Amino acid sequence: MSDALIERFRVTRQQSIDFCEYLAIEDYCLQAAAFASPPKWHLAHTTWFYETFILSPFVTNYRPVNPAYAILFNSYYNGVGKQFPRPQRGLLSRPTLEEVIDYRSRIDAAMETLLHDQHHPQRDTILFRCTLGIAHEQQHQELFFTDIKYSLSVNPLFPTFSMLEESPPSVETAKLQWIAYEGGLVEIGFNGGDENRTFAFDNELPRHKTYLEPFCLSNRLITNGEYQEFIDDGGYQHSELWLADGWVDIQTRSQTAPLYWHNIDGQPMEFTLHGMQRRCDTTPVCHVSGYEADAFARWSNARLPSEAEWEIAASEIPVTCSGVDNAIYHPQPAFSATQSTQLHRQAMDSEVRDNNEITQLYGECWQWTQTAYAPYPGYQPAKGAIGEYNGKFMANQWVLRGGSCVSKHEHLRPSYRNFFYPHDRWQFSGIRLAK
Amino acid sequence: MSDALIERFRVTRQQSIDFCEYLAIEDYCLQAAAFASPPKWHLAHTTWFYETFILSPFVTNYRPVNPAYAILFNSYYNGVGKQFPRPQRGLLSRPTLEEVIDYRSRIDAAMETLLHDQHHPQRDTILFRCTLGIAHEQQHQELFFTDIKYSLSVNPLFPTFSMLEESPPSVETAKLQWIAYEGGLVEIGFNGGDENRTFAFDNELPRHKTYLEPFCLSNRLITNGEYQEFIDDGGYQHSELWLADGWVDIQTRSQTAPLYWHNIDGQPMEFTLHGMQRRCDTTPVCHVSGYEADAFARWSNARLPSEAEWEIAASEIPVTCSGVDNAIYHPQPAFSATQSTQLHRQAMDSEVRDNNEITQLYGECWQWTQTAYAPYPGYQPAKGAIGEYNGKFMANQWVLRGGSCVSKHEHLRPSYRNFFYPHDRWQFSGIRLAK
Amino acid sequence: MSDALIERFRVTRQQSIDFCEYLAIEDYCLQAAAFASPPKWHLAHTTWFYETFILSPFVTNYRPVNPAYAILFNSYYNGVGKQFPRPQRGLLSRPTLEEVIDYRSRIDAAMETLLHDQHHPQRDTILFRCTLGIAHEQQHQELFFTDIKYSLSVNPLFPTFSMLEESPPSVETAKLQWIAYEGGLVEIGFNGGDENRTFAFDNELPRHKTYLEPFCLSNRLITNGEYQEFIDDGGYQHSELWLADGWVDIQTRSQTAPLYWHNIDGQPMEFTLHGMQRRCDTTPVCHVSGYEADAFARWSNARLPSEAEWEIAASEIPVTCSGVDNAIYHPQPAFSATQSTQLHRQAMDSEVRDNNEITQLYGECWQWTQTAYAPYPGYQPAKGAIGEYNGKFMANQWVLRGGSCVSKHEHLRPSYRNFFYPHDRWQFSGIRLAK
Amino acid sequence: MSDALIERFRVTRQQSIDFCEYLAIEDYCLQAAAFASPPKWHLAHTTWFYETFILSPFVTNYRPVNPAYAILFNSYYNGVGKQFPRPQRGLLSRPTLEEVIDYRSRIDAAMETLLHDQHHPQRDTILFRCTLGIAHEQQHQELFFTDIKYSLSVNPLFPTFSMLEESPPSVETAKLQWIAYEGGLVEIGFNGGDENRTFAFDNELPRHKTYLEPFCLSNRLITNGEYQEFIDDGGYQHSELWLADGWVDIQTRSQTAPLYWHNIDGQPMEFTLHGMQRRCDTTPVCHVSGYEADAFARWSNARLPSEAEWEIAASEIPVTCSGVDNAIYHPQPAFSATQSTQLHRQAMDSEVRDNNEITQLYGECWQWTQTAYAPYPGYQPAKGAIGEYNGKFMANQWVLRGGSCVSKHEHLRPSYRNFFYPHDRWQFSGIRLAK
Repeated sequence: MSDALIERFRVTRQQSIDFCEYLAIEDYCLQAAAFASPPKWHLAHTTWFYETFILSPFVTNYRPVNPAYAILFNSYYNGVGKQFPRPQRGLLSRPTLEEVIDYRSRIDAAMETLLHDQHHPQRDTILFRCTLGIAHEQQHQELFFTDIKYSLSVNPLFPTFSMLEESPPSVETAKLQWIAYEGGLVEIGFNGGDENRTFAFDNELPRHKTYLEPFCLSNRLITNGEYQEFIDDGGYQHSELWLADGWVDIQTRSQTAPLYWHNIDGQPMEFTLHGMQRRCDTTPVCHVSGYEADAFARWSNARLPSEAEWEIAASEIPVTCSGVDNAIYHPQPAFSATQSTQLHRQAMDSEVRDNNEITQLYGECWQWTQTAYAPYPGYQPAKGAIGEYNGKFMANQWVLRGGSCVSKHEHLRPSYRNFFYPHDRWQFSGIRLAK
Repeated sequence: MSDALIERFRVTRQQSIDFCEYLAIEDYCLQAAAFASPPKWHLAHTTWFYETFILSPFVTNYRPVNPAYAILFNSYYNGVGKQFPRPQRGLLSRPTLEEVIDYRSRIDAAMETLLHDQHHPQRDTILFRCTLGIAHEQQHQELFFTDIKYSLSVNPLFPTFSMLEESPPSVETAKLQWIAYEGGLVEIGFNGGDENRTFAFDNELPRHKTYLEPFCLSNRLITNGEYQEFIDDGGYQHSELWLADGWVDIQTRSQTAPLYWHNIDGQPMEFTLHGMQRRCDTTPVCHVSGYEADAFARWSNARLPSEAEWEIAASEIPVTCSGVDNAIYHPQPAFSATQSTQLHRQAMDSEVRDNNEITQLYGECWQWTQTAYAPYPGYQPAKGAIGEYNGKFMANQWVLRGGSCVSKHEHLRPSYRNFFYPHDRWQFSGIRLAK
Repeated sequence: MSDALIERFRVTRQQSIDFCEYLAIEDYCLQAAAFASPPKWHLAHTTWFYETFILSPFVTNYRPVNPAYAILFNSYYNGVGKQFPRPQRGLLSRPTLEEVIDYRSRIDAAMETLLHDQHHPQRDTILFRCTLGIAHEQQHQELFFTDIKYSLSVNPLFPTFSMLEESPPSVETAKLQWIAYEGGLVEIGFNGGDENRTFAFDNELPRHKTYLEPFCLSNRLITNGEYQEFIDDGGYQHSELWLADGWVDIQTRSQTAPLYWHNIDGQPMEFTLHGMQRRCDTTPVCHVSGYEADAFARWSNARLPSEAEWEIAASEIPVTCSGVDNAIYHPQPAFSATQSTQLHRQAMDSEVRDNNEITQLYGECWQWTQTAYAPYPGYQPAKGAIGEYNGKFMANQWVLRGGSCVSKHEHLRPSYRNFFYPHDRWQFSGIRLAK
Repeated sequence: MSDALIERFRVTRQQSIDFCEYLAIEDYCLQAAAFASPPKWHLAHTTWFYETFILSPFVTNYRPVNPAYAILFNSYYNGVGKQFPRPQRGLLSRPTLEEVIDYRSRIDAAMETLLHDQHHPQRDTILFRCTLGIAHEQQHQELFFTDIKYSLSVNPLFPTFSMLEESPPSVETAKLQWIAYEGGLVEIGFNGGDENRTFAFDNELPRHKTYLEPFCLSNRLITNGEYQEFIDDGGYQHSELWLADGWVDIQTRSQTAPLYWHNIDGQPMEFTLHGMQRRCDTTPVCHVSGYEADAFARWSNARLPSEAEWEIAASEIPVTCSGVDNAIYHPQPAFSATQSTQLHRQAMDSEVRDNNEITQLYGECWQWTQTAYAPYPGYQPAKGAIGEYNGKFMANQWVLRGGSCVSKHEHLRPSYRNFFYPHDRWQFSGIRLAK
């Protein structure tokens, strides 16, 4: 088992570097908002995580690569110590990229040595924390894409992150349909997984009972075209469609469309990691806030799903591949029944899907739920600073479920709980309806 | 029935005036923060509510007392029209108090005429909305106390709102004990009430099933003395006790104690509506934020109750009287078993309570729950502007349950859902623990 | 001499009360911006000034009326001690108006006793400081009008401060003409005055030499009609007319016209202390910022006067009466030569003026100069806290010269230096051109 | 003459590149505050200046290198068009450094071609604007040093910009002495210069008369040691030493020492472009605000010079070399009479200086004056957008005179007027006293 872990460690570490291949050196420090950390910072912070939580405590007489990094690359772990202010991460021109790459190499070497030490008295903890470190790095790989997208988007030159090799074929959108579920007294939370997925974050535990009324979910995500209808119908002008805080939010920030929507010379455009592209009606709408998702749902005489409803619906469905697995960093349309071949990605299973199947659970956009992020009954965070990973954020944020085009599919599972503030829009966040 | 309603209308209208008896004219415009509306504004806004939602639509050719009031005294009903900016309510020196009193008289007269019209085609709606208007005015009576307390508190002279006739006797605090509940598949939400309580807000509906693990609640509220122990133990310095947003909040606002706590010449004092008073160890701690309540609970190896837990525990307990019913505007200590006579208020029932009874559900402090304010499954707000009453606030706020010393007991019931932002502290908000 | 002083003391003290006659009690606490102190605060602060700088130091065993007032009614004298925060003055509902009136009476009585003490060892200082206290109270009387105008203006009811007894007659405006001055090596600063005007603030001293190039001043103030032409010509859209800080200022605050200009149902209106009035083309434009005055001047191919130019031009002209002397609280038009009788005010001298005379130096609007407020060469502020009166403000403000309709004419003289930030607009500030 | 100009053009252009030699690529985008532009932006903006004001108007059918640069690299010229927001200049990772270097090369080539065109009908304007462009680039070279110093300073690693080859020898400070000047009716403003200095900015014109009382200036700049005495004497705690706006400024920003002063492990240190260095008592105090300079002067029973006083004192003194001419980017101490050899720089003249000579006029720190930046009598800015260079900033800023260690000496002259807001501290700004 530890060989497999070492291999996953290596692959993940390399992947973080590979994802940066298109960047100019100047891009590595880019931070256009407090929430959007620079690429170099992600590379260093994920390294800091291994150093702080594994090497420092478990390697005898460990000497840190640079003691200053303990503060510079701490994200939010008060238990570890102070943190360099988040909004200023882009101001760290030093250490240079070269120095950060060197930092990664040294930590990787030390980690491999430690992972090979079969007789270490804390071997179980080491292996567990390494597994956590890999999951942590995968989260930051996803953040890397969301953050660099935002940071490039404020440049009036609209730089292209990567060219799309071939244009996706035009598709006929699957019809929006309701899929019914019975509800009742159900169980949610991580169930232990299967051989491919044995890890879960602490916030997915414990598995527990909850009661659901019967409900329906939409079979696919809401599209740009459908969202445009909402706009055209005055969605952003009718206060009765909005939560009070949402109404204040769109007024204050003058929002009248999803983030990254542009009209250039009269044409509907969308800024993507593949450059400024024509906005396609059948593509899932993306980069909406929780408030926008909620208002759209109310306009549709529907609502957002609860996280329990989503999880029950997803519990029998295998995790599909994501765009990122194919170097596509933008959501793709749902196929109608007549276009059933998987053009751009492959399901992990090969069963034929019928017409009433729920689609786009993974691989396109995270899906806002109406559920406030809160501890499950009996939730226990880990002891010490590592317990700050999830628990302390359980206020004022909303749960999103699924996964997006920039989430690696190995990282996802039905019980996965993502969470952001309802006003956040820089995530690849979209809309699935419930009623 | 309508006679009883007219009587309740009259009593409530008069009560709003009576509560102001101690004010100087200069106090009526006082607004020390955006959230703390001036007394005169409360008097006018509760009047506007009847005019807008009852007289205007249901009296033929109704002519408003002053068309400008439609904007001046609209609180947050976008469906009605624009609103005068909330933070500037204190700047409305005109209309003068005299003019507002006159406004009240005219509306009262028009209301009574309408309520006596037995044959009005919309009589049912009128009676329902009048009931709602009374509940609405009762809410504003409570806000009147919370708001004027805050607005007086910023004056370095620490004005006394009303003198306390006699000092409360010193008491021995009831011991903090855990009361166990079974949980299971239970029902919460307004159950239709009894003959005394037939009204509920829309947010208490529909009654619905939910599943609870077994739980315990503390038998009484946390006291000043217990909260002082938390402070003395470094509660405000240990980040691991705090939600991330809470930690930022207490740093940003330099909070190290509940609102209204003072140390004057080395003495522990507390600003109250009865003036600056010595802080009593056995009094329930009050004016804490949800973040403070949550941190205290974590420090106690406990947690806050969910709103369903609270409601199940309260479902069999009668609503007791509140301080306001006896002109006491500050929470009072729980009595120990040896002081079982009710000194300052009377329960509505007269049964003898045993030692394991839950106390202080009502009448002292609202109790923070860990539950984010959200719609119940199947919740439907009313159509039109009146539907803005509750539903649009269902984001980012936390539910508080019970009632405080300034909530009239007629206004309360087990299913009542109060809600504030977790950073709010000017409410009479306290702490009950769960585990 | 001291009898005359006592009389001036009494008159000035009474005047402050008389000016409030139209207020409702609710108006006395009104403060719509940090810069606009409430009437009650002015009444108390001017009283505090006598108590702090005269009674406390010079009456043996003086006991303050209320020790808390030392902080509450200190404006900005750090040398005296702390100050209650300026933006919160409107929150002092207590002491009530009645208590403040009582405070005034007690101080007045104590002052009269002291002023009658012919043998007091510090009699000279007492008399000097009393003279200063009277000038100080006159300044606050003027501020009372400017502040209450602003504070009433944010009320959508646009309350009228006082009715105008009769409408001013319509007038033909005097033609705008240039009056030439020689310049050269001149002297400015207070010259000791005459029998009527023996007092000057320290900032008017010492009298000193300065060199002026030949210059011209406009014979009267710029009118609403002329300012409207500037607006119609795109004045607020052309950045090249504006100082950089001014351009930022009008963008940030979305200014496109003077403060208090309104367009109501298509009609040009102006909020005045006599209520909302039709805007008159011949009335001097008022309530413009220094930036607006400067931009208007540049648009006119002219500039603002320097303070030395203004003083030289004014040095031979007697001080005329102001609107406030006739209960007119709004600037009035300049008369053309054919309307030479003084309709609304009387010059203090009775000479016939010819056509080339400079007018409107006093009594309508303060006039922005291009001169930054700075110490005269050799300037010495008084020792102690009273030295904070003027000197510490000598940065970032601009000098205004003349006097306005709400400045009592006894308070004015050619060497008088008023000063405000260039972005301030709530003063009665207007425009005279130079070139 | 144009050959000499072409040579100066080439030298200046190359100098801008040479000054960057120590930077890492990551440093080129660094912007730690709105006022501190990134190195890459300076390189591009100085290039944009030639393109916009010379190539575009005077080369037939000129095609811009990249039309987007017109907005991206416009600093503040509203007459040219929109500007990319100043605080976001650091977010322009693209164009990359390589692309900006390429931009420079193309513009340089086009400029040389144009400068060689002897028969161009606007040759005079071209030559004049080229001269202005060179002066402009020299200003930005100086800003480059001040800005990168600030931007590096926020990095906890305190990166060294360049190593100092050898430590400066320890020196005995010249004694602080007063040098007396007669004053009287004098002339200031650019006098046409000599053969080395024929250029001046428009704000130095016209030369004009002004009247000065007799005055004294200190013979050298105030040192760190003297400033430390001011601090030790409670300078930052005594409000009476401060202008009102200055007092607010140091409270708001919690200032208790000059920018870049640190105490590290009990040692007095100073962040410099040569790294974190021990703070030397004899070095001129630097990076103080105008408010700090003014407060220090008041504490010294002195004042700041007026700009006219400074210019009269400097009018007979040759411009000395600056640190930057010798790769020293930090002010150096004044030598006492016994150390008369010029150790670190050479005066442009070789005369022996006597004891009563004024020193450190140039080459160490800009010197705050008490003069608000304003137009000279008869000032005329250039027509068109180029007229925005100086004139529109003539409000709210203070004049500084002299030059600093990072000002090339060719760029300086006695009539040179530098200007910053009184709260600015990131400039190399120091203190000379007057009385």
